[in-house]
Amino acid sequence: MDAKTLHVDAGGGYDIVIEPGVLDRAGELIKAALPRAKKIFVLTDSNVGPIYGPGFVASLETRGFMVRTHVIPAGETSKCAASLVGIWSAMAAFGMTRSDGVAALGGGVVGDLAGLAASTILRGVDLVQMPTTLLSQVDSSVGGKTAIDLPEGKNLVGTFYQPRLVLMDPKVLSTLPLNVFMSGMAEVIKYGCIWDREFFDFLAKRPTRETLMADITHILYTCCDIKRQVVNEDEHDTGLRMILNFGHTLGHAYELAGDYVRWSHGEAVAAGMVTAATLGVRLGVTESDVPEKIESILAPLGLPTHIACDAECVERAVGVDKKGSGDHVTLILLEDIGRVKPLKIQKSDVTELLSGALGG
Amino acid sequence: MDAKTLHVDAGGGYDIVIEPGVLDRAGELIKAALPRAKKIFVLTDSNVGPIYGPGFVASLETRGFMVRTHVIPAGETSKCAASLVGIWSAMAAFGMTRSDGVAALGGGVVGDLAGLAASTILRGVDLVQMPTTLLSQVDSSVGGKTAIDLPEGKNLVGTFYQPRLVLMDPKVLSTLPLNVFMSGMAEVIKYGCIWDREFFDFLAKRPTRETLMADITHILYTCCDIKRQVVNEDEHDTGLRMILNFGHTLGHAYELAGDYVRWSHGEAVAAGMVTAATLGVRLGVTESDVPEKIESILAPLGLPTHIACDAECVERAVGVDKKGSGDHVTLILLEDIGRVKPLKIQKSDVTELLSGALGG
Repeated sequence: MDAKTLHVDAGGGYDIVIEPGVLDRAGELIKAALPRAKKIFVLTDSNVGPIYGPGFVASLETRGFMVRTHVIPAGETSKCAASLVGIWSAMAAFGMTRSDGVAALGGGVVGDLAGLAASTILRGVDLVQMPTTLLSQVDSSVGGKTAIDLPEGKNLVGTFYQPRLVLMDPKVLSTLPLNVFMSGMAEVIKYGCIWDREFFDFLAKRPTRETLMADITHILYTCCDIKRQVVNEDEHDTGLRMILNFGHTLGHAYELAGDYVRWSHGEAVAAGMVTAATLGVRLGVTESDVPEKIESILAPLGLPTHIACDAECVERAVGVDKKGSGDHVTLILLEDIGRVKPLKIQKSDVTELLSGALGG
Repeated sequence: MDAKTLHVDAGGGYDIVIEPGVLDRAGELIKAALPRAKKIFVLTDSNVGPIYGPGFVASLETRGFMVRTHVIPAGETSKCAASLVGIWSAMAAFGMTRSDGVAALGGGVVGDLAGLAASTILRGVDLVQMPTTLLSQVDSSVGGKTAIDLPEGKNLVGTFYQPRLVLMDPKVLSTLPLNVFMSGMAEVIKYGCIWDREFFDFLAKRPTRETLMADITHILYTCCDIKRQVVNEDEHDTGLRMILNFGHTLGHAYELAGDYVRWSHGEAVAAGMVTAATLGVRLGVTESDVPEKIESILAPLGLPTHIACDAECVERAVGVDKKGSGDHVTLILLEDIGRVKPLKIQKSDVTELLSGALGG
């Protein structure tokens, strides 16, 4: 595992440092990126905190930072308004000033919450992201989206807020359960599908966790670099960025069908990509061998290629999808592996269009 | 009362329309500013809503908007996280999309809350501000600051978020209680003190509500124009904008001394300006006749020129002042009426420095 750094121009510009063991020297890098900060508020969760929290905090304290650690229960249910309000109060009690910083140590829930809290406490303080899951490393490190869920739906509240620094330690992936690692792989494969055929083929030749981990730095770098290119052209999510939703509209339907319990986000996206490819073939947009290619890269990783789902779930997924404005929704289709083709359709046509592709 | 429009470049750029009766044709102006919006979420409070809500909503509905009105209890205690969460849920239940808009009809509390909610629901929807108090018209219409209070302090959570349109109806000021109107005048006079001697003299010749209201369009326009010039150079509050805090550091101490009940914000700022001027004279920074000039413009309006306050309140006000970073605080002094001079001092020196100026 080698080390790489990717510079992102969004916001004030920031580096993504991908380096085995980088958490152990985080204090040094954060001191350089946030030279005025005296206090660092660390948000982590009950899974990650006990494993990686003490080493990280020690690294900060060695560099002279005052540190307050706030631990939320692991899991999506923590991504709520009550957690956010608790974090705000803890930040205020810590006596932060606008020169101080927030560090997120955990997966997507921790990153989304910490980002929203950092963007709103004192009208915005500096943010360092340290994603510890494969999904959050390839998805949340670029783009600056922060969010909480409401009882009415997921990710309904949030901001666009860029970090000052992202530290990504591939070594932490070794403590992920296999199914969580593979869920992240669904998003990795998505980047190949929408942007980079060569990367897709590279991944197809690495059908196990071991072979993937042997090249993990290259994999993380490539995904972040693709997302960087997409987001650079569309910082506020009004156009091109929607191609990152490939597999996600149907993925949301599958998550709903399983009550967000049966299928993880990555598993739902995996099957969603296959369905979107199948639909594309039927509409004459997609090369006929694409669904099979996607299936054959997913299957060895243990990711589902088909999930049963009724029309109602699809309609709910499309109806509450805040990215769809008004009466239309944009489905992301492929022309071929590496070439994307958005298709804007009437929401009312979705069910009919998908009836053949839903598989149940 | 004539009509004027001021264009502000911040954000995507927006107009401030100052026009008697503008609320009655708000629907037309909002339709033009938010052409893609189908739904408007109206936030108002229990004082303003019953008086101006029905006419405004009718004006929106005439233009084809779907409208949901959300009423919060009048008063600063509504500016809290619980209100914000309730607003988020009401917005989600209304089924807003990213093309829809939020309209704030009320004073500073309504504007601050609506701005924060609009900047975070769906990661940001369009915002129309319709300030109905003199204070909010001259203070909140420019600058894009949104906020809520936490139990730990005021305005600790917020965003910078520019509206798409500001509608300012001077006629609504006629329903303000006299003391609320005069509280707003303290901020009006502040603009003369820090930026525009001619405007200060103009105000000094209008020592009653009636004479001020006869020229209210000019007064509102001038204040917003001064704030526009200051904020244009400092959108994110890192430098010049601090001059808008003239009278406010001591004002905060006075508000604290009166438990936020005895003195309104404007009353506290009025006395704070006099104390800052007196301190400036003692330090050799301020012309010797400035305190008297400020006193003689405040007194006829019934605004306090001196408020008793102990050192502890000053220290608390300075210590929790989030604008002060680290160990220093910047006091805003005047060289003369219309010419400002920020002075950075050690927080630990504040008490000694002010001991002669506190008057109690």
